[in-house]
Amino acid sequence: MKKVVALDSLEEEVCAALEAGRAEDLSALLAQHHAADIADVIDRLDDDEQARVFALLSPAQAADVLSETDLEATRALVGRLSPEAAAALFRRMSIDDVVEILGEDVPEARQELLEAMPSAEARDVARHLAYPPRTAGRLMTESFVRATAEMTEAEAMALLRAAAPAVEALSELYVLDAEGRLSGVVTFRALIQAPPGRRLGALAVAPAAQVTPETDQEEVARLVSQYDLLSIPVVAAGGRMLGVVTVDDVVDVLVQEGSEDVLRLGAVQEGATDESYFTTSIWRTIRRRVGWLLILFLTGTLTVNVLGWFEEALANVVALSFFIPLLIGTGGNTGAQTVSTMVRGLALGEIRPRDVWAVVARELISGLLLGLLLGVAGFGLAALIGNGWDLALVVGLAVVVICTWANTIGALVPLVAHRLRLDPALVSAPLITTLVDATGLAIYLLIARLILGL
Amino acid sequence: MKKVVALDSLEEEVCAALEAGRAEDLSALLAQHHAADIADVIDRLDDDEQARVFALLSPAQAADVLSETDLEATRALVGRLSPEAAAALFRRMSIDDVVEILGEDVPEARQELLEAMPSAEARDVARHLAYPPRTAGRLMTESFVRATAEMTEAEAMALLRAAAPAVEALSELYVLDAEGRLSGVVTFRALIQAPPGRRLGALAVAPAAQVTPETDQEEVARLVSQYDLLSIPVVAAGGRMLGVVTVDDVVDVLVQEGSEDVLRLGAVQEGATDESYFTTSIWRTIRRRVGWLLILFLTGTLTVNVLGWFEEALANVVALSFFIPLLIGTGGNTGAQTVSTMVRGLALGEIRPRDVWAVVARELISGLLLGLLLGVAGFGLAALIGNGWDLALVVGLAVVVICTWANTIGALVPLVAHRLRLDPALVSAPLITTLVDATGLAIYLLIARLILGL
Repeated sequence: MKKVVALDSLEEEVCAALEAGRAEDLSALLAQHHAADIADVIDRLDDDEQARVFALLSPAQAADVLSETDLEATRALVGRLSPEAAAALFRRMSIDDVVEILGEDVPEARQELLEAMPSAEARDVARHLAYPPRTAGRLMTESFVRATAEMTEAEAMALLRAAAPAVEALSELYVLDAEGRLSGVVTFRALIQAPPGRRLGALAVAPAAQVTPETDQEEVARLVSQYDLLSIPVVAAGGRMLGVVTVDDVVDVLVQEGSEDVLRLGAVQEGATDESYFTTSIWRTIRRRVGWLLILFLTGTLTVNVLGWFEEALANVVALSFFIPLLIGTGGNTGAQTVSTMVRGLALGEIRPRDVWAVVARELISGLLLGLLLGVAGFGLAALIGNGWDLALVVGLAVVVICTWANTIGALVPLVAHRLRLDPALVSAPLITTLVDATGLAIYLLIARLILGL
Repeated sequence: MKKVVALDSLEEEVCAALEAGRAEDLSALLAQHHAADIADVIDRLDDDEQARVFALLSPAQAADVLSETDLEATRALVGRLSPEAAAALFRRMSIDDVVEILGEDVPEARQELLEAMPSAEARDVARHLAYPPRTAGRLMTESFVRATAEMTEAEAMALLRAAAPAVEALSELYVLDAEGRLSGVVTFRALIQAPPGRRLGALAVAPAAQVTPETDQEEVARLVSQYDLLSIPVVAAGGRMLGVVTVDDVVDVLVQEGSEDVLRLGAVQEGATDESYFTTSIWRTIRRRVGWLLILFLTGTLTVNVLGWFEEALANVVALSFFIPLLIGTGGNTGAQTVSTMVRGLALGEIRPRDVWAVVARELISGLLLGLLLGVAGFGLAALIGNGWDLALVVGLAVVVICTWANTIGALVPLVAHRLRLDPALVSAPLITTLVDATGLAIYLLIARLILGL
């Protein structure tokens, strides 16, 4: 029986055993714990310690742990094994986990490893790797229960019994015809309730949903969530069933995609899916951030130009410049809120491409209303500071126009990105902020010119 | 067999049938489709159409659809039913779905509905409602398979057969002792492989993880993801097993939490979990947004004060004001990136409270390095624009200091929020932006005063 302990205490025990050099104790300790917990500890050790812990695991446990460690650790561990030893571990792993490890950019190592694997298995892996990353083809397993319509309930139970030690998706039997085309699904729930002798053809129902190997993993997750599935069949264009994606992989996709949206909204280029905070080097972190920062910086220089055009106005009324950060900040905040709402609505499928104009109209109106509320605050503030009613009017009006504009742009840009099949979260809030900055300044200073007659 | 169609076409068919007033056609159409798809269509209809479609569903289908519609629609539909009719539908629904509907803030309606329900059932619902929102207690179902250690494999199969029509969690049998305490789990996979006559006591293993009814739903999701579970037992403080949370609910939690982080990072106050973009009224949207915007606006007025202090400097060198948006924008972008990295790291458990100083040191260093890279660009830009080497030096230096500062603050604030048990995503990027704005301006103008001798 596997103990469940607080991770910190397991980490401390492992580190203590490593320091004391007590290999047998460590080995006994590891044997008592769940592979997922051991993987979490390994993720936090340095290369040398990782290898020492990994070497103490039984082959079965090593394979389980390798399916759970993060990419940096997995690479380091596999890199220290001979191709033959790695191939032997891969044989014990589920094909989608092997594909995930080999799917990352280490082409030479990949070739060597594929050559060390039995040829049938190497072909399987290569076939999966041919599908684009982040698709059902990469996530699926071919390990599901294949049944025929003529099978009786008792034969199906015997089939499940035979499949149980090795097959991943055990909650459903898939009824295939002679050509391997999917004709129906029998859930374990339906099977166990069937009267003796009933044939699967009579128990099968059409699958609630199915995908192709090219289906994006987010869409796979959406369907599994929509229909509360434990597995979803992957079917080729011709109708032949290739495999299933199981719900545990969907849970991992959701965890991963959720955290990616968070990074993208913050304008951090996402790295490999499995990189964790502390195992990523500072240089790598900087490489992932500096690109976006530079792009935003260069776009931001537009604001320098805009302000340059209005040099005279700014020289005449220095107080105009006092409100610059407040106004563009408000525009940026309004735009960021709208982007978040769009990213969420698009991700959940609530907003569809044909809704574009309804959405833009809605955001224009709510931008105007928000602008009016904040505009009153802006007018009051500027009047209080006491640079005259004229300036207060300029600030108040500018808030109204900038909010309306930022809200509309904040809606339009993610929708356009989605139409262009880009990730709307990539059109991140900071990008909108920068765009809204330059135009917001121009709006403010044009209004100032009109009202103050500069 | 349920047809799976593109949602748009189902929506069009339903609308066409509604317009033509062909109730029988519509009824036949609905009977062919999955409840989750019908719910999606209902979410997009107006109140009156919703009620007309809902009235055509069979009781069983109506219960399924009501579990899937979004909160606004569910409320409207339940509100049109008599308490008795609603209670009858609730009897057909899973208790966690009923709890979700009754868990929202309609206390009078809730009381009336509870009174219309059979008293045992009303007690069950009330007991679940006593747990705080977003906990395992709210999500769990008491509908799981209870077994004893003395049961044989054949008795357990008979138990599963009897449970199959009604019990939600069918992939595991939970072995309880005479006091209802959880002593082990037998998976269906293990059961079906067991030799005839083997008792469950010999097949059971300790659960990989368990939670209490008060455990936060994010932690439940993390454990299910970590150990690839299909259900996780919920156990009271005394050891008595209360229920299970099934993986389909965890998938829903992940979808919901992911989209909440997106909203929070955009400083949009989250509403009820089930509100969708188009069914939320514009006024409700504005109420959810204006609070944060006003707070940020008022914080932003700090920048007006800061600039006021430096009025003389700005009047003497107008070109100083040209770089204000660029500098505070860069500070804000840098801070936003760090916040995103923190939110992700904290959510995935990669960053733990005791790592605070390691994280701050790391972000201080990477802020400095990013600042140096961008500072060179800032120096070059200001030099090009040709307001003299002095001003270029001021801008370049300000970029370095502001980036370092923004990066450090962007790391520190989410960590402090996490320590205070606030959601780090709530400490949203715009809030950091606003904080960094005022301090960034002060840094810039102090450097200007020093170097330009103003």
